[in-house]
Amino acid sequence: MPNLSDVTGRRILYGGDYNPEQWPEETWPEDIRLMKAAGVNSATLGVFSWSRLEPRPGVHDFAWLDRLMDLLHEAGIGVVLATPTASPPPWLGHLHPDTLPRDADGRTEWWGGRQHFSHSSTVYRRHAAAITEALAARYASHPALTLWHINNEYCTYDHGDEAATRFRRWLQDRYGTLDALNTAWGTAFWSQGYGDWAEVAPPRHAHYLRNPSQVLDFRRFTSDMLLECYTAERDIVRRHTPHIPVTTNFMPLWSGQDAWRWAEEEDVVSVDLYPDPRDPFGAQEGALVQDLTRSQARGPWMLMEQAAGAVNWRGVNHPKPRGLNRLWSLQAVARGADAVCYFQWRQSWQGAEKFHSGMVGHAGEHGRTHQEVVQLGADLARLGPHVAGGTVGAEIAVLHDWHAWWAADQEARPSTRVDHADVLRAWHRALWQGGLTTDFAHPEDDLTPYGVVVVPQLYALTDAAVDNLLAHVRGGGTLVCGFLTGVADMDDRIRPGGMDARLRELFGIRTLHEWWPLDADESADCDGFRGTLWSEEIEPDGTASETIPYQGGELDGLPAVLRKGSAWYLSTLPEPDALRDLLARVAADAGARPVLDALPADVEAVRRGDLLFLLHHGRDPVTVDVPGTHRELLTDTVVTDRVTLGRYGVAVLRDPEPAS
Amino acid sequence: MPNLSDVTGRRILYGGDYNPEQWPEETWPEDIRLMKAAGVNSATLGVFSWSRLEPRPGVHDFAWLDRLMDLLHEAGIGVVLATPTASPPPWLGHLHPDTLPRDADGRTEWWGGRQHFSHSSTVYRRHAAAITEALAARYASHPALTLWHINNEYCTYDHGDEAATRFRRWLQDRYGTLDALNTAWGTAFWSQGYGDWAEVAPPRHAHYLRNPSQVLDFRRFTSDMLLECYTAERDIVRRHTPHIPVTTNFMPLWSGQDAWRWAEEEDVVSVDLYPDPRDPFGAQEGALVQDLTRSQARGPWMLMEQAAGAVNWRGVNHPKPRGLNRLWSLQAVARGADAVCYFQWRQSWQGAEKFHSGMVGHAGEHGRTHQEVVQLGADLARLGPHVAGGTVGAEIAVLHDWHAWWAADQEARPSTRVDHADVLRAWHRALWQGGLTTDFAHPEDDLTPYGVVVVPQLYALTDAAVDNLLAHVRGGGTLVCGFLTGVADMDDRIRPGGMDARLRELFGIRTLHEWWPLDADESADCDGFRGTLWSEEIEPDGTASETIPYQGGELDGLPAVLRKGSAWYLSTLPEPDALRDLLARVAADAGARPVLDALPADVEAVRRGDLLFLLHHGRDPVTVDVPGTHRELLTDTVVTDRVTLGRYGVAVLRDPEPAS
Amino acid sequence: MPNLSDVTGRRILYGGDYNPEQWPEETWPEDIRLMKAAGVNSATLGVFSWSRLEPRPGVHDFAWLDRLMDLLHEAGIGVVLATPTASPPPWLGHLHPDTLPRDADGRTEWWGGRQHFSHSSTVYRRHAAAITEALAARYASHPALTLWHINNEYCTYDHGDEAATRFRRWLQDRYGTLDALNTAWGTAFWSQGYGDWAEVAPPRHAHYLRNPSQVLDFRRFTSDMLLECYTAERDIVRRHTPHIPVTTNFMPLWSGQDAWRWAEEEDVVSVDLYPDPRDPFGAQEGALVQDLTRSQARGPWMLMEQAAGAVNWRGVNHPKPRGLNRLWSLQAVARGADAVCYFQWRQSWQGAEKFHSGMVGHAGEHGRTHQEVVQLGADLARLGPHVAGGTVGAEIAVLHDWHAWWAADQEARPSTRVDHADVLRAWHRALWQGGLTTDFAHPEDDLTPYGVVVVPQLYALTDAAVDNLLAHVRGGGTLVCGFLTGVADMDDRIRPGGMDARLRELFGIRTLHEWWPLDADESADCDGFRGTLWSEEIEPDGTASETIPYQGGELDGLPAVLRKGSAWYLSTLPEPDALRDLLARVAADAGARPVLDALPADVEAVRRGDLLFLLHHGRDPVTVDVPGTHRELLTDTVVTDRVTLGRYGVAVLRDPEPAS
Repeated sequence: MPNLSDVTGRRILYGGDYNPEQWPEETWPEDIRLMKAAGVNSATLGVFSWSRLEPRPGVHDFAWLDRLMDLLHEAGIGVVLATPTASPPPWLGHLHPDTLPRDADGRTEWWGGRQHFSHSSTVYRRHAAAITEALAARYASHPALTLWHINNEYCTYDHGDEAATRFRRWLQDRYGTLDALNTAWGTAFWSQGYGDWAEVAPPRHAHYLRNPSQVLDFRRFTSDMLLECYTAERDIVRRHTPHIPVTTNFMPLWSGQDAWRWAEEEDVVSVDLYPDPRDPFGAQEGALVQDLTRSQARGPWMLMEQAAGAVNWRGVNHPKPRGLNRLWSLQAVARGADAVCYFQWRQSWQGAEKFHSGMVGHAGEHGRTHQEVVQLGADLARLGPHVAGGTVGAEIAVLHDWHAWWAADQEARPSTRVDHADVLRAWHRALWQGGLTTDFAHPEDDLTPYGVVVVPQLYALTDAAVDNLLAHVRGGGTLVCGFLTGVADMDDRIRPGGMDARLRELFGIRTLHEWWPLDADESADCDGFRGTLWSEEIEPDGTASETIPYQGGELDGLPAVLRKGSAWYLSTLPEPDALRDLLARVAADAGARPVLDALPADVEAVRRGDLLFLLHHGRDPVTVDVPGTHRELLTDTVVTDRVTLGRYGVAVLRDPEPAS
Repeated sequence: MPNLSDVTGRRILYGGDYNPEQWPEETWPEDIRLMKAAGVNSATLGVFSWSRLEPRPGVHDFAWLDRLMDLLHEAGIGVVLATPTASPPPWLGHLHPDTLPRDADGRTEWWGGRQHFSHSSTVYRRHAAAITEALAARYASHPALTLWHINNEYCTYDHGDEAATRFRRWLQDRYGTLDALNTAWGTAFWSQGYGDWAEVAPPRHAHYLRNPSQVLDFRRFTSDMLLECYTAERDIVRRHTPHIPVTTNFMPLWSGQDAWRWAEEEDVVSVDLYPDPRDPFGAQEGALVQDLTRSQARGPWMLMEQAAGAVNWRGVNHPKPRGLNRLWSLQAVARGADAVCYFQWRQSWQGAEKFHSGMVGHAGEHGRTHQEVVQLGADLARLGPHVAGGTVGAEIAVLHDWHAWWAADQEARPSTRVDHADVLRAWHRALWQGGLTTDFAHPEDDLTPYGVVVVPQLYALTDAAVDNLLAHVRGGGTLVCGFLTGVADMDDRIRPGGMDARLRELFGIRTLHEWWPLDADESADCDGFRGTLWSEEIEPDGTASETIPYQGGELDGLPAVLRKGSAWYLSTLPEPDALRDLLARVAADAGARPVLDALPADVEAVRRGDLLFLLHHGRDPVTVDVPGTHRELLTDTVVTDRVTLGRYGVAVLRDPEPAS
Repeated sequence: MPNLSDVTGRRILYGGDYNPEQWPEETWPEDIRLMKAAGVNSATLGVFSWSRLEPRPGVHDFAWLDRLMDLLHEAGIGVVLATPTASPPPWLGHLHPDTLPRDADGRTEWWGGRQHFSHSSTVYRRHAAAITEALAARYASHPALTLWHINNEYCTYDHGDEAATRFRRWLQDRYGTLDALNTAWGTAFWSQGYGDWAEVAPPRHAHYLRNPSQVLDFRRFTSDMLLECYTAERDIVRRHTPHIPVTTNFMPLWSGQDAWRWAEEEDVVSVDLYPDPRDPFGAQEGALVQDLTRSQARGPWMLMEQAAGAVNWRGVNHPKPRGLNRLWSLQAVARGADAVCYFQWRQSWQGAEKFHSGMVGHAGEHGRTHQEVVQLGADLARLGPHVAGGTVGAEIAVLHDWHAWWAADQEARPSTRVDHADVLRAWHRALWQGGLTTDFAHPEDDLTPYGVVVVPQLYALTDAAVDNLLAHVRGGGTLVCGFLTGVADMDDRIRPGGMDARLRELFGIRTLHEWWPLDADESADCDGFRGTLWSEEIEPDGTASETIPYQGGELDGLPAVLRKGSAWYLSTLPEPDALRDLLARVAADAGARPVLDALPADVEAVRRGDLLFLLHHGRDPVTVDVPGTHRELLTDTVVTDRVTLGRYGVAVLRDPEPAS
């Protein structure tokens, strides 16, 4: 299979979405000139061009795209060519209203925005296949073509009638019989027993709580339908260009796609990444998404979209302060990206995203943002030969699974304050703050590469996943596990005892009496720290090697944290510093060391290949101890024993051979 | 008519909803074993079993229920048998979409949850009657059958077309002519004059405010339609088993049912009660609902549902701390309950309520929650012979009326901060804190049993109700009346002067100039206390015996509180301590004494029959003075002059003959 | 054309909406008696009387209205006669469901409230024309008729199918070709190119952001459709009574109507005004609306609706404290009103607005509110001959444009905290607090009457408007301009450079690098004050005469405020005192003086004709220096050099000839 290195070679891809049909054609040569000056080597075309490419059903206009492809090729800029199927032309919805999605309330999602397509619509799929076929046929041998980009940010739900039909078919495939479905969904409760497949429907608006297993399966179904849309288009382009890799861009940590499953169907894993420039944890959010994407890619990955400055969809949209775009871009490279791209090259002057920044903003060529884009282009060109293709090593794996998330994130649960993604963020941030590099893994993945496995929260686990965790500990590995893990099976059926019995035994828990979720004004004092969000009334079985008790309150004296050998269980969420320190200690005990010791606060250190990236997320200069002599690649200077980083400063050191 | 004592005898019923069809049949003997060990003597079957009992239209499967009834009977456990009509099987909505309710926005409420039935659907009613008929015929003579439980928590609205048809018919019955309807609804305003019955519809989504009298009648209609559903099923079961009492379970203080009217149609009044274990006023909420339910029952009543631990529908669902389940259960007994039951026996492992606790929780037999259930079973068994059938006396009546609530709780009113139920809570809580036992009564009820009548707020009053209040005062009774009382008639037509003239005369009010509702950041200083929520610009007529003035602000010097003889009017809501003290003084003046004097804070005292219940709602031990010698029934010990209550402690004293 | 002075003569109109069909006819003589006693000389009839006037389609009942017209005429009270078309009878929606509007979600807006008419419905328009025709024919020569009031508070949107048809037709008129529409809407983005007019629709619910130019045009269309409804009825009444002026009442600062355009079609400009009595800036809100309405009227205007006391549609509805109704009414007169009217004469006793106060409230004749109404009637009668027809002069113009507002107020913009109306309020309030009287003007209006032009924010400007601003400055005028001005053209297309180039040149801005919107917890320190809401990264071109820099933060040293000659640009919103002082300084430099110097806080001074109004918005007495000798008209006394104003006090001084 082709892959990202076929595209990048020893370069870092640099560029972004390019939608020049928004401007008069006279603008295009100006774009090319600026791209070349900025070191741009990649442009993504056609993401939202369907109505331009097929203005009437079956009538194509490729001439403008021909000219663009040629123009870019002449300029030495490769093209990521998108199928335009994320936004059908108005004629499709008008001629075929059934191609429009319906939400759970029955509201139609009209055209006039984007993504107004039902993943389940046969008519939509046929038209999407046709435009994909035409596009692939036309550009299969165009020399500018480097990568296929299918659709864009797959993210739609549909509760309409055609979706209902496909949902039934999907359920028939999954369960075979209605009896099996009734068992899996627990329909004996609330008189929901289905006697005919025709009765089964998406979880539409209801008087009161909807069946959670039905909701869970509907999420699986949605991910699968979107994946069918993707693979159908992928297979078409692959038939025309077996040598050209294919991707579709994920939304970071979006709950709608089982990204582990999707990544298997991609040649290149790519992601869109938009931390809030004003979020004090923006860098950590980035690191999380980057680690997750790298783990999905199992190697270098593509940052498909980021913003050079502000986005337009938050309540208050802050620009990126001087240096931040460069810092966060190099952070992505440090964590495995071989492509740094943006939405979009030139900021729109009309339409719904005209306040979303571009590599060329409204301020134009002389705008600060563009000037920084130019500088970054030079940096990436310098780094490319050293870094492209390089791998990032990690001794720690964080487990994540979309199915567990879908099962946990439902109506009527113990605490709506427990947000699966936020718990993940809290744990990954603690590891980041401890200077520990982490991979992500699926709970059934091979865990032998990792000395330490961390489970922030996996509400639902398969038996195989439980086996996997047990084998990891039995094999000498360390496991740290947060609350609400192993509670349910994959049908969302509570395990006897409220938590998998083998896990309880693993941690030394006799009885999990009650969950004590904590409200916003509550916390749980523990010996040495405060717990937040959650606590538990646990009766230990006496086999634990170590416990940290709750202090005061209803749980006084009961274990907040249990360790039994190398297996840890945390029944609360320690406040950030405490979680960081605990994980640092656990990692150290397991021999997993920070990238650098004694890093100043705000400095992130990552090793990629034989390079050491130092990324400074603060504004005041700091000095970092890096014993030995190194070459700093961005400045092409030699540094000895220490390096000083200015505001948002980055150093990329060619590492001497590790001492150990 | 049969009643609750036919079921209880000299026992307290103890048990809960039992939905064993959720588990493999092997679980059932285990359930029986645990029930017996816990002293359970009642199980409610079939609440949500329709799709199991009638898997296809007209096809019945009773065999499993036969086995369960037999099993329970053999174990000596009585069965409360429910008609399963609160959750129709999927086939009903699928075959007959018109049986599904529509909300005011036109959204369908689909199956997949529960209560997805239109109360107005003739097809639904026909199917509900058929399954009720089949159930009643089959189990009429089963020896386990003790009580019929019709449907569950009736609570649905429907704005659809069949509801519109029935609404018109209901209005025709009520008004006879369109002229009368137009007059009652004040349709001369905003050009709403109806010229044809076909034009009249439920109050659906509108551009701006909807007609409040229409909304009021729609609420009456809804209560009546639900009641028709109830009585239709009741009449069926009664025909088969005239000797078996019938109930349906109320939701506490839910606004949708005129519970005074409903209670008349029940043999047993039952209620569901779920105070938040973390609510500092949870016990007072319980006391209110218990007093209200007892008053509706005019005698012993049934606590049909409570939670052994946490519920699942709040944002954060706290479990019950050790002892609280027992405390609140015994509080219900103290206030007249002869049945203490739960939703549900065994906590679900699947479905929408799997995080709602059970008498046997996920932690199982050895879980703390179940252990406390066992202990409570023993306590109830001990108390039963002494308490069952006993009555609770009260010298004070709090007046409440759903129609007044419905009229007050509308769009576009003086203050959305004035919540009818919260005002009721504030007044009842003040009486509770004063140690005063209260009944509830309807404003037209005979008030002669009560020395003191309290009206927290009755925005709308009939002329007969005004007569009743006047007669009460004329007869030497004391009346304490809160603001926004007697403002409107039962069509929601404002009384001349903004408040009934005879009430104004009763309290010594010449002119009610303006309402001054108070915002969240406002209060009204009065002589001796602060008023909250509301204030009024009143011109007294000089006949008051006593006034407490506002101090400062626009109302400086005007009366906040007026007393004329034994009639009190409060134009503001005094802060809690002030309201407690004021009501205590008024009660004392009227000769209504607290159950015990000088009770420690947090201790509740209630007399039932010849028993004195002392309930300690705090966690630190307290000592209560109880002069004389008593037998404490829970411990079977003798106590003299004082009794010490530990955390959440309860004492039930056999009272020596009252001194007076 | 007839105008307001034809109605008023040398009186101030005083009265209000009169809907006596709500009460038995016996009430009417009582109403007349009270009106006369209160000095009421105008009554508005028929605003919501359609179902009474036409109880069945085509069947009219005018007899009751005949009697009312006669009764009022006999009492010497003129009638403002309304077409009743704001609230169609139930039969219209019932017979013609297509006359009901649909919101963007597809929800029908049913009858039972008001304004349940689709502006686009041909059937509605036909019925509205018919009742208007019948009404006009009947009362054309009635001597009580003084003014026509068309419909009421036009404010409806419709996204239904007939609206879609008219929208397409409106767009065809505007753009001629689909190409032109595609260009104007920027449909090249997100694949929205329309290939057939039939595909174009209102901006209905969409998966993600809707096209902002489509939304903008839909707002224009909505204003135009409503205007068509208005002019159609106006033309009918005008045909019958060419001598009787016509109005429709605006909602103050409501965004739905282009009131500049509408005012051109009215003989009398009228407005409804409901500041919150508890809002500390209620008086400033009033002043803003009054200045805006006066500017639309280009002379005296009509206060069509205000409340004598509380309204009913806020969360908490406060009454007006003693004196406030008089104060705010006289403020309107000071700022140009020749009519002071209310909704409504007698407070409803039924229906959706029964808690909205009336000139005769629920407390009746002896209620405080009515007593104050009587006093105000006497005051107005006293002032009428001196003030009616008088003009208010202003040297400062504030520019406002609904199209700019519509373009700015969209989804996905830089900051949802920037509310166009609130920015306008902040600037007008600063001018008010500086004692500066202002007119409002459209950006393309002749600005030569004004020494100072203030642009709080005009996100979109036409080229002609930019020319106008430039010409103003070139002609020696002063311009003060807030941020987010001149950003877009009238299609909502961003101007090159992110702000009109000629404006940038005017202010000395080379590059507008980035917007830095400020979050609720942010501010921007500047030299001498704090900026709020917004800040900008500006590179000046070195031509500015004066700058005020940002201090600290990312923008340290960059200009917050630029002045180049007499053109000022503010890239942030200074906190209130700073904005007041800055504008006062700018005005003073331009020779625009406050009405009076050294006014006490809370005292407003306005000159109208040769009268000086002093309005005291505080509760503690203050003394105002007014050098010279004046006659105070309300008390008919002579005051020399100073006048003392009590709580909410007003003095109206006949001004000696101005010294300058």
